[in-house]
Amino acid sequence: MVPVTKPKGWVVLVLRLLALAATASATIVMGLNKETKTFVVATVGTTPIKATFSAKFQHTPAFVFFVIANGLVSFHNLVMISVNLFGKKLDYKGLRLAMIAIFDLLNTVLVSAGVNGAVYMAELGKYGNSHARWNKICDRFKTFCDHGGGAIIASFIGLALMIVISIISIVKLAKSKSNTPLLGEP
Amino acid sequence: MVPVTKPKGWVVLVLRLLALAATASATIVMGLNKETKTFVVATVGTTPIKATFSAKFQHTPAFVFFVIANGLVSFHNLVMISVNLFGKKLDYKGLRLAMIAIFDLLNTVLVSAGVNGAVYMAELGKYGNSHARWNKICDRFKTFCDHGGGAIIASFIGLALMIVISIISIVKLAKSKSNTPLLGEP
Repeated sequence: MVPVTKPKGWVVLVLRLLALAATASATIVMGLNKETKTFVVATVGTTPIKATFSAKFQHTPAFVFFVIANGLVSFHNLVMISVNLFGKKLDYKGLRLAMIAIFDLLNTVLVSAGVNGAVYMAELGKYGNSHARWNKICDRFKTFCDHGGGAIIASFIGLALMIVISIISIVKLAKSKSNTPLLGEP
Repeated sequence: MVPVTKPKGWVVLVLRLLALAATASATIVMGLNKETKTFVVATVGTTPIKATFSAKFQHTPAFVFFVIANGLVSFHNLVMISVNLFGKKLDYKGLRLAMIAIFDLLNTVLVSAGVNGAVYMAELGKYGNSHARWNKICDRFKTFCDHGGGAIIASFIGLALMIVISIISIVKLAKSKSNTPLLGEP
């Protein structure tokens, strides 16, 4: 199925599709993450007083940035896949490979920032921090935490794939020196 | 002072020195960040009961990773500066520029992860999060927060410099195709 002469071109395309799937699902799962629960906060006589609380991703700045960062990286991979499939004629003074490597670099840095900001907040929500007297909240908002954790794992997979893609982009640029199409760039 | 034929070689060296200064000071300031304070926690009769609390960077996993990430990136820039100054003969099948670009990429991703994990924790310490009932602690541990904030600003400067250095490394690799020493790589 994979042509022998152009192995790496297909590899990168598949890696980009996987990275797109990972960051896009991270964006969607975190972006829809909301849990509403009703707790008994007091009892007057025998009447329980209830209050409804919501856990939303918008309440935590790190999660908002997580959604933005993963969304932008998804968009980047979508554009790169489109260019790879439909825009093979686009090139300006041989800058194409260098531009791809630079855009990959910037997006890898972005997803790294997004996921690491979120993961330490998630850790705090799960375990709390006794020194700062910040209590864990995952015992009360389990679904919220499960969804957030899933989004973070997906984003870490996206980060790992983006690092591999960025390294391949740099290697491709280096190989293009000798004009051998070893890495399958058309 | 700067030779006309090799302008960018010196630029990168200066950028690396600045990045090294930024990430090294971030590492040291955060690594030494500790504040101990004594508070009155109760009063028995007229005798105040005091307790001593410490705010240390080790109490927050994000700050520990911040110190490790900035330390590693400082080490990377130190090695790169040394190689640039003393190791000009080191090359293996022309892989030197590609390896530099890849190492720069990995370290930029690392410092991005470190600083963004820490900045959202710092934001939480400064403003708290009323939704999760996490109270701010910077009103009580002002020096700790000031030092942490300084370290984070230094690390953001280091991140910006590392992004510029990584882009230059990729451009250098692209330019080396035509064998013109435009970017001053010896």
